[in-house]
Amino acid sequence: MAGSSYGTVFKITTWGESHGKALGVVIDGCPAGLALEEAHIQRYLDRRKPGASAAATTRREDDAVEILSGVFEGRTTGTPISLIVRNTSQISKDYSEIAACYRPGHADYTFDQKYGFRDYRGGGRSSGRETVGRVAAGAIACRILEQLGVNVCAYTRSIGPVEADLSRFDKAAILSTPTAMPDRLADEAAMKYLEETKKAADSVGGCMECIVDGLPAGIGDPVFEKLDANLAKAVMSIGAVKAVEIGDGCPVSSRRGSENNDGFCVRDGRILKSSNHAGGILGGISDGDRIVIRAHVKPTPSIYLTQHTVNTAGEETDINIKGRHDPVIVPRAVVVMECMTALTVLDAMMINMSARMDSLLDFYRK
Amino acid sequence: MAGSSYGTVFKITTWGESHGKALGVVIDGCPAGLALEEAHIQRYLDRRKPGASAAATTRREDDAVEILSGVFEGRTTGTPISLIVRNTSQISKDYSEIAACYRPGHADYTFDQKYGFRDYRGGGRSSGRETVGRVAAGAIACRILEQLGVNVCAYTRSIGPVEADLSRFDKAAILSTPTAMPDRLADEAAMKYLEETKKAADSVGGCMECIVDGLPAGIGDPVFEKLDANLAKAVMSIGAVKAVEIGDGCPVSSRRGSENNDGFCVRDGRILKSSNHAGGILGGISDGDRIVIRAHVKPTPSIYLTQHTVNTAGEETDINIKGRHDPVIVPRAVVVMECMTALTVLDAMMINMSARMDSLLDFYRK
Amino acid sequence: MAGSSYGTVFKITTWGESHGKALGVVIDGCPAGLALEEAHIQRYLDRRKPGASAAATTRREDDAVEILSGVFEGRTTGTPISLIVRNTSQISKDYSEIAACYRPGHADYTFDQKYGFRDYRGGGRSSGRETVGRVAAGAIACRILEQLGVNVCAYTRSIGPVEADLSRFDKAAILSTPTAMPDRLADEAAMKYLEETKKAADSVGGCMECIVDGLPAGIGDPVFEKLDANLAKAVMSIGAVKAVEIGDGCPVSSRRGSENNDGFCVRDGRILKSSNHAGGILGGISDGDRIVIRAHVKPTPSIYLTQHTVNTAGEETDINIKGRHDPVIVPRAVVVMECMTALTVLDAMMINMSARMDSLLDFYRK
Amino acid sequence: MAGSSYGTVFKITTWGESHGKALGVVIDGCPAGLALEEAHIQRYLDRRKPGASAAATTRREDDAVEILSGVFEGRTTGTPISLIVRNTSQISKDYSEIAACYRPGHADYTFDQKYGFRDYRGGGRSSGRETVGRVAAGAIACRILEQLGVNVCAYTRSIGPVEADLSRFDKAAILSTPTAMPDRLADEAAMKYLEETKKAADSVGGCMECIVDGLPAGIGDPVFEKLDANLAKAVMSIGAVKAVEIGDGCPVSSRRGSENNDGFCVRDGRILKSSNHAGGILGGISDGDRIVIRAHVKPTPSIYLTQHTVNTAGEETDINIKGRHDPVIVPRAVVVMECMTALTVLDAMMINMSARMDSLLDFYRK
Repeated sequence: MAGSSYGTVFKITTWGESHGKALGVVIDGCPAGLALEEAHIQRYLDRRKPGASAAATTRREDDAVEILSGVFEGRTTGTPISLIVRNTSQISKDYSEIAACYRPGHADYTFDQKYGFRDYRGGGRSSGRETVGRVAAGAIACRILEQLGVNVCAYTRSIGPVEADLSRFDKAAILSTPTAMPDRLADEAAMKYLEETKKAADSVGGCMECIVDGLPAGIGDPVFEKLDANLAKAVMSIGAVKAVEIGDGCPVSSRRGSENNDGFCVRDGRILKSSNHAGGILGGISDGDRIVIRAHVKPTPSIYLTQHTVNTAGEETDINIKGRHDPVIVPRAVVVMECMTALTVLDAMMINMSARMDSLLDFYRK
Repeated sequence: MAGSSYGTVFKITTWGESHGKALGVVIDGCPAGLALEEAHIQRYLDRRKPGASAAATTRREDDAVEILSGVFEGRTTGTPISLIVRNTSQISKDYSEIAACYRPGHADYTFDQKYGFRDYRGGGRSSGRETVGRVAAGAIACRILEQLGVNVCAYTRSIGPVEADLSRFDKAAILSTPTAMPDRLADEAAMKYLEETKKAADSVGGCMECIVDGLPAGIGDPVFEKLDANLAKAVMSIGAVKAVEIGDGCPVSSRRGSENNDGFCVRDGRILKSSNHAGGILGGISDGDRIVIRAHVKPTPSIYLTQHTVNTAGEETDINIKGRHDPVIVPRAVVVMECMTALTVLDAMMINMSARMDSLLDFYRK
Repeated sequence: MAGSSYGTVFKITTWGESHGKALGVVIDGCPAGLALEEAHIQRYLDRRKPGASAAATTRREDDAVEILSGVFEGRTTGTPISLIVRNTSQISKDYSEIAACYRPGHADYTFDQKYGFRDYRGGGRSSGRETVGRVAAGAIACRILEQLGVNVCAYTRSIGPVEADLSRFDKAAILSTPTAMPDRLADEAAMKYLEETKKAADSVGGCMECIVDGLPAGIGDPVFEKLDANLAKAVMSIGAVKAVEIGDGCPVSSRRGSENNDGFCVRDGRILKSSNHAGGILGGISDGDRIVIRAHVKPTPSIYLTQHTVNTAGEETDINIKGRHDPVIVPRAVVVMECMTALTVLDAMMINMSARMDSLLDFYRK
Repeated sequence: MAGSSYGTVFKITTWGESHGKALGVVIDGCPAGLALEEAHIQRYLDRRKPGASAAATTRREDDAVEILSGVFEGRTTGTPISLIVRNTSQISKDYSEIAACYRPGHADYTFDQKYGFRDYRGGGRSSGRETVGRVAAGAIACRILEQLGVNVCAYTRSIGPVEADLSRFDKAAILSTPTAMPDRLADEAAMKYLEETKKAADSVGGCMECIVDGLPAGIGDPVFEKLDANLAKAVMSIGAVKAVEIGDGCPVSSRRGSENNDGFCVRDGRILKSSNHAGGILGGISDGDRIVIRAHVKPTPSIYLTQHTVNTAGEETDINIKGRHDPVIVPRAVVVMECMTALTVLDAMMINMSARMDSLLDFYRK
């Protein structure tokens, strides 16, 4: 079970390696009747493309998406939507060192241990390019959520020591700054820090955050399929993520209950929480408030400093990684987090439709 | 889909509410031939029972487990193992306030929103008693893992501001201290802190950690079924957990790659990592090193201070919670984390058996 | 993966062996708000109990069901419903012959091959008593379907050479005749035939049929999750079933298209088929017409004639089966077929709720 | 949940419509290290291509398969294998009649009822071309099974009234006759019958059979995941199949137990059954004998006679179907049945590897 499917009702299956012929995704369970065109998906894919800035690699990838099935006369048919992105810019180069050595921080060693060998070209299936399929599918989930009044938005919270100041939250900056920060001042400071990092032939980690607005209360299930549990899995499944927080996250472990509990109140006839330490989820079920998730991302493991490692013959050796690598993963991973969150939330909403007898009766006896 | 099943090959389904007749679990997919008796499971259940100490509630629960199926002549048969724990000590009391109000920090409001009504006695299915089934099933997973040479161990890392010093790691202390800390000095300090907390009619959060030793390299799958992604879900599905870290966790987001990468080396002919910032997982697959997971737990939402909230009629009101509640959840949740980790790791090991052609050929052509 | 779960959204997990302490089922995903009491489930369980007639064994089983969770104040809560039936009448007897020999037509040999050993008391998990859990769960599915206007009804179509004449269809006879035939004349003839069969120390097979009325068009999915494919699995999973037919079934293989196609027509403003060779399913999706399924059941393998077989030591031997066994399985299996059909149809209806964008918009934007 | 995935460990997801840009499949969970090249898959796809004979349509389809991922240096990597077949020969034609009318025996009406509209070009997703993905994936399953010593073979058993005589079983004839019958005399008779059928502007049904040799005893699970239950689903999910039989199938319902039971015996030190009425499965688990499955296929619904039906405006009308259609589906569906059987059997074998503690200990403690 290679684990390339995600979701229960809105289910996606991704495929493809960094330097194979193509990458893609099959979306099974997309509702029929959704207006869909390639340009919408392309906008999401373009957000994970490397830019011209210091925050991203200079490798050029066109990543043009093609819809192969499941859309007829501009609308989804309810049958599987197959999306493909051809690999066009993979330059044939010398992979002999990666083939023979285990790069620190990469999955080379663990793939070899699991499968007996690996596609060593650019990391194969363990490459960040694997997320092309996730983002293409997530773009569709986002469009459906929008029509349901649910908005998902991810951004860079910090890069190394530089943190965005959310009191200056500027949504437009997320798409227009090279760091995907919602704060232009922090973006400038982070870009400077990245320049230094590159000069030091090193890399750095960062933190990304995703918020979901407009989600009705009652979404998610008790026990194992808690909405926060599924979001944790969704976000931790993104390569390089090492921690996930919901709402206030880690700091709650040193708080008192009287500080951390969110009281309920009534505003304009609606029941609301008077604070949101919980991040919009109580007992695994959405409470109608903003969902808040954070992911901590490790530094890009490919650095230009000489590193000590072991080769496939089991001998210690030094390795010098070549090629072009982002000094930080976060700015391009933000859209992946947004998409994984959207896929998770939409699936939970679709599953939720049969939670009550009155829903079934309304649906079938009308 | 109420979400009460967990696992793919070693699959469990839990059931039961806080104040119902009984709680239990069905384990489907347990390998045949395992020696199993009730006493083994009981030892795990006893670890989540409230004790006599200040760290836990004084409510008495016997929680005696009974094996109803799937074991014959002392060995598992390969067919479903049904385990039941009868509720015996639920005192009939006045639930009218909980029935009519939404307790801050609890799932009362979200259950009502999802299902239209709820079993308000002791939190119903959203109660911590739901974990009885998880622990009973996890006890079996732990026994199998032991025979495979894999050891899972969870403990309290911190309570409020008091942190265990792992340089004094004392495994015996985990089972013998009221806080489940592996450090007797920290345990004493934490118990003092809990006394103060109780006097203040308040509660406090904490952090728990789980380590897995002996897991071979190669376990877990790429992309969505990464071992860390599944561990994150497993642990976040435990009520009150608000953050999950793998290996070094959150701090990696401000580190340099040169600090965070774990180099490989050779010791006694075996390939090892020279450090373990990664927490034993690379690219979602175990690397043979110790797995390290941390969970941050919010303060017990039931506190004895007056809180402001809303009732089911939609009016603001004050609530005073009665009954006996732990001032901190962590010491009793530690065994739940150990069990969820064991269930996740065992399932991944069973799935892994068909990952390679040579494994299939060995199995069927011998 | 022992395979004791069934369904995707309305999911059941059964457990228990013929001579264990109890049998039961956990239903996860039952919608909240359904009125449910033990008496309703008991009526279905009573239909699979052995009667006093020649068609059934004289072994007495009370099979009293107890609801352990998931129902509060007479209504389902949306969380798992755990049902248990204690085994009370299993007489301690000598199983040494079954333990040592492979009974022809039974699963003794295959269980030993798969698991290395088996619970030999009364067949263990391979016994017909395993269906207790299916029927208890199916009773709930039937109640929900009734409220949705869908009626499921199974009956005996034939026993040995005696076939019910459906032109005399008498629904009341299904529940009141010992053969569960909807035709009292055929019932009498079949009972005579069974008397002869018993005198000959032999057994006989039979055929059962299930019809579903009131199912709206549009239920079921294309490709692998076709409604008829899932019904075939559901019915073939009942022990002793060796063939499944949908609509006209086997005879279509020698027909012409002009004979077999069902034309469409309009009656009272509704689109209908002018015949129903298809059995209510086209392309795997319900067409609004009556669903028709037939199952062919092999003769009870336990017969009183001496049979030649092999013992667990691998030596040929003769076996004489003792105890009380029905000469035909069908009359007691009819309710199992009804329940498996109901579970399949209800699950498909629940899954279907998110098939179209307009359904999602209606549900969430109202 | 559009239902386009099949399998648990060896899991496939198919996509594509009759007249879309392409069709394909993603195989997730294929073991690493299998030698695989396009030519092997192509041989299976060629068997479902229309030929030049009277038994098949004259529409030309190249159906050239391309491997897009999951194979590196000629071997599978363990990550998803994506296969694509471009649609090349779909002639742009007038679909206005199919768009406006419900063809008898087709899924036009049910798709419209489910999804609100449909891709009417050539049947869209409900077309027989959907099986391209199944066959491409099944070719890989067959190759693995061969290496495990398991052989799967399907053939035409009958066309209309003409039945193959299995006492003349000629395996080579299956691939070389236009009817895919293993009996050249029956093939000739069937071809004559098909000529008459075509002259009558009509179509005819048929029966296909699949045998599995070399499957070890112990494969399959009790209760819902019985091997025969899964085979029934697999085969019933093939369009136009209306009945599935295991072993002797339907006739068992009128037999005596003494006729139908298969005794056990010992031959050359191995335990065997002395007959095989059961078709190689007892209690849902393989018994080591030949597996036998039969599928009854309805006549091609597209016939050239005028038929009465209803249009999408809800008015009765006549329809005359144009285009080229096979007078019988069976000869081209035989390879689909072989592939669905192979996928089912292989998945069961992979799942079975963790059924016993000694298997786990052998695998992980060596």
